[in-house]
Amino acid sequence: MTYLRNAWYAAAWDFELTRLDLFHRLLLAEPVLLYRKSDGTPVALADRCCHRHAPLSQGRLKGDRVECAYHGLVFGPDGRCVHIPSQETIPPAARVRSYPVIERHHMIWIWMGEAAAADPALIPDFHWLDAEGWRWRGETLHVAGDYLLVVENLMDLSHLPALHRTTLADTAIPANEIPVEVRTAGSRIEVDRWVLNTPPPPYFTLLAGFERDARVDRWMNTTFLPPGFVTIDIGAATAGTGARDGDRRHGVTSLNLNAVTPETAATAHYFWAQAQDFAAQDPTLTELDFKLVHTAFLQDLAIIAGQQRNLDLAGSAPRLNLAADKAGIQARRIVERLIRDEAKAVATA
Amino acid sequence: MTYLRNAWYAAAWDFELTRLDLFHRLLLAEPVLLYRKSDGTPVALADRCCHRHAPLSQGRLKGDRVECAYHGLVFGPDGRCVHIPSQETIPPAARVRSYPVIERHHMIWIWMGEAAAADPALIPDFHWLDAEGWRWRGETLHVAGDYLLVVENLMDLSHLPALHRTTLADTAIPANEIPVEVRTAGSRIEVDRWVLNTPPPPYFTLLAGFERDARVDRWMNTTFLPPGFVTIDIGAATAGTGARDGDRRHGVTSLNLNAVTPETAATAHYFWAQAQDFAAQDPTLTELDFKLVHTAFLQDLAIIAGQQRNLDLAGSAPRLNLAADKAGIQARRIVERLIRDEAKAVATA
Amino acid sequence: MTYLRNAWYAAAWDFELTRLDLFHRLLLAEPVLLYRKSDGTPVALADRCCHRHAPLSQGRLKGDRVECAYHGLVFGPDGRCVHIPSQETIPPAARVRSYPVIERHHMIWIWMGEAAAADPALIPDFHWLDAEGWRWRGETLHVAGDYLLVVENLMDLSHLPALHRTTLADTAIPANEIPVEVRTAGSRIEVDRWVLNTPPPPYFTLLAGFERDARVDRWMNTTFLPPGFVTIDIGAATAGTGARDGDRRHGVTSLNLNAVTPETAATAHYFWAQAQDFAAQDPTLTELDFKLVHTAFLQDLAIIAGQQRNLDLAGSAPRLNLAADKAGIQARRIVERLIRDEAKAVATA
Repeated sequence: MTYLRNAWYAAAWDFELTRLDLFHRLLLAEPVLLYRKSDGTPVALADRCCHRHAPLSQGRLKGDRVECAYHGLVFGPDGRCVHIPSQETIPPAARVRSYPVIERHHMIWIWMGEAAAADPALIPDFHWLDAEGWRWRGETLHVAGDYLLVVENLMDLSHLPALHRTTLADTAIPANEIPVEVRTAGSRIEVDRWVLNTPPPPYFTLLAGFERDARVDRWMNTTFLPPGFVTIDIGAATAGTGARDGDRRHGVTSLNLNAVTPETAATAHYFWAQAQDFAAQDPTLTELDFKLVHTAFLQDLAIIAGQQRNLDLAGSAPRLNLAADKAGIQARRIVERLIRDEAKAVATA
Repeated sequence: MTYLRNAWYAAAWDFELTRLDLFHRLLLAEPVLLYRKSDGTPVALADRCCHRHAPLSQGRLKGDRVECAYHGLVFGPDGRCVHIPSQETIPPAARVRSYPVIERHHMIWIWMGEAAAADPALIPDFHWLDAEGWRWRGETLHVAGDYLLVVENLMDLSHLPALHRTTLADTAIPANEIPVEVRTAGSRIEVDRWVLNTPPPPYFTLLAGFERDARVDRWMNTTFLPPGFVTIDIGAATAGTGARDGDRRHGVTSLNLNAVTPETAATAHYFWAQAQDFAAQDPTLTELDFKLVHTAFLQDLAIIAGQQRNLDLAGSAPRLNLAADKAGIQARRIVERLIRDEAKAVATA
Repeated sequence: MTYLRNAWYAAAWDFELTRLDLFHRLLLAEPVLLYRKSDGTPVALADRCCHRHAPLSQGRLKGDRVECAYHGLVFGPDGRCVHIPSQETIPPAARVRSYPVIERHHMIWIWMGEAAAADPALIPDFHWLDAEGWRWRGETLHVAGDYLLVVENLMDLSHLPALHRTTLADTAIPANEIPVEVRTAGSRIEVDRWVLNTPPPPYFTLLAGFERDARVDRWMNTTFLPPGFVTIDIGAATAGTGARDGDRRHGVTSLNLNAVTPETAATAHYFWAQAQDFAAQDPTLTELDFKLVHTAFLQDLAIIAGQQRNLDLAGSAPRLNLAADKAGIQARRIVERLIRDEAKAVATA
């Protein structure tokens, strides 16, 4: 399998990468070692000693450096070997790959391609996780399926009524009942869904205290960024107060942030969080919102595992596309195009 | 691995396919969904939604139709999609494969090839399971080996004394002590073994009450039908009363019915039953006969798993054929010939 | 993977091969049956009946012969079939491969190549396990990695300080502190390490009672023989008493004997023993020495499993060679050259 390499991927939540720990994660089928320097900044190195392939994560953290368990070679955060116990000379080739890595908005972001191209401005926007007035909770799930099955799942809200009957179905907007607008700008896809002047959904009467006989303008707007980022902006505001024009002062928002990173061709790491702008004083609402989505996502993962089993049996079996798949198909095509572009760039260079 | 497609296969015992259930089974490396309509008749569909490959068996039965868990597409028993929640139009391609399926004599039979060729007259004869004066018990075993290893096992009774020393050896006819007649008619193989005017075997003194000093005519006649059906007709009658000419009124029969269906190239489903014409009033005899054969079959399956492990290591290692292998080799050749014929027919069409 | 075939391999410790048992072991990806004749001498046959591939180890030992569980074919210790229950004639092809096998110095040695070339004089020297005045203990470990990773591990003592910090590091000679001499003679490699007139290492003050203020001459000499034999001769003698010239009467020796046999391309059987010439009266010293090395070897196996996981992900990733790797690299080259020579010899013949 070919992965998009020149891209930021989520590698870990900040809370997964504890101090004094050597943390192993397989990303794009490459073993990666993550750790924190003494000042707390994250480091990402190939989890494979350049000498004899031993996983560095089996070694020891010594200050800001990591010592290989096998022969004691010591590597700095830049991947350069700085000590070889058995000899004085350190060959120039004594280094392991160092990946650009940035901690931002509670996520450890890693760049799996050419380091020179790693522009922090390209990191997906998770700023809500640090914004005043917002609360959130996130987690990491393991996916027994190709990461693009998760992307497809998130880009297609037509599965909510069937799959999430017991969780999100009543609380979300059925895609077929509302006008949907799909915009593509470069490799970004935006899908807006709005219903104006409608009763508040149970989800928001429950979470945000709308009266049942109120009228609201509702939205459920999805954004995709390759390779595996989907944000779903869900909200409701008192009808006619200008939410669709950008004024959300009379409304509430619950934001679903998703970052899916391939582990192998058939498995993935799924980092997601749910953030609310209305639960600042009540953590039980954050918890409730998280639990609702968490339960729904486990339903998704069971289906995705089933899809993957069927793909493993016959991956080339045809897929019938429906109208509601438009955004998901576009997402796949964008990823495939970017991978082709990378291959061409490599061939040219 | 290539399987014979235009053939009936056993998919499940009737008691395995309960009402209101969506039952998954992998047959010939294809995921199959089995369920019963409200009138009880069985349905077999590809267990792979035509939309996004989700297993339909993870969904819900709604009357005679099945609803995909993922997006709520509803399929009728003929495999046609009759409802797509997210859109009005149902594309003609919105269907999953429907397999011809027939319930007969307590077995669910499935046709894995061209539906037009599915002639119910070709279903193997299991009528004894419904015949008056007969009792039976059957089960499904999982085989950690190629289904043809089971066929070979059943077609060759020379393994009874060695492998079934503790179970069937004393109760069966050693193949080398009796005249064996092998007849082949089309793709059917019949192997007759008769011993005339001989003491009754312990098996039948135990089960059918022959006196130890009586004289009987005994038989053990095997029939093979491709791809994986073997019936072993075992019996004894008072000597000279015409059993060999077809008059079994002075004898008893215990029939061993076997249907082996490939699951993958290296695993199989093994459906078998033991039926008696002499135990109508005594269920404990049915149970005893079943237990004897069941225990022997577990011995067979341990050997078959060992064979498969060795085949996995070196599948092309030579096999030495003995005289007693004649029927088993013929069975393999018939299956191979039928598979070649199918490939030719496809190439011609 | 190609293995060196014309070579003796360790197949089992003598104590693993109990009387009256049919013992299965996968060696060089071939199923092998080991058993003892009534006079105790070992037999090694292909664990695959020539008839239908059933593992002979599932059968029964009958005197010096083995009976296949499936059809009762009986094979003699030379692999020839001597009985077929279902027929009188025994075809000449009715035989399984018999491997030359010799029990010597508590090890069962097997020759996996051409029987005619199996010269007992080529069996690695384990005579210390039978020598007067010596005590020893050995075991078999399973390795989740290529056997050459173990060879490399043993040929390179520069890993002791880092990996065996808690076990052997304090008790062994750091390779970088002493003069190392590497000699290659044919396919044999000898690496001598000597430190003269030095305080005794804690290992020997502990085990052999040297005073802490004594002066000793120490050694740690490694010998490699292909494909997977490494002996490490560790010792110390009162300084200036001629140990380096061969007179060890004023010293003590602890010998580490290793025989690594490939199971598959990515797993191995690791037979090793520790023998002492100073513990004859005190079994607790033998036990202590064994436990120290055993614990260290478990540390090695954890690293080797990590190396193998990384090799499985990207086997062709480059390896940086250090000065201390010289002997290990030579060992690999010798094995590769011998395998090439075998391939050429086969091509010529």
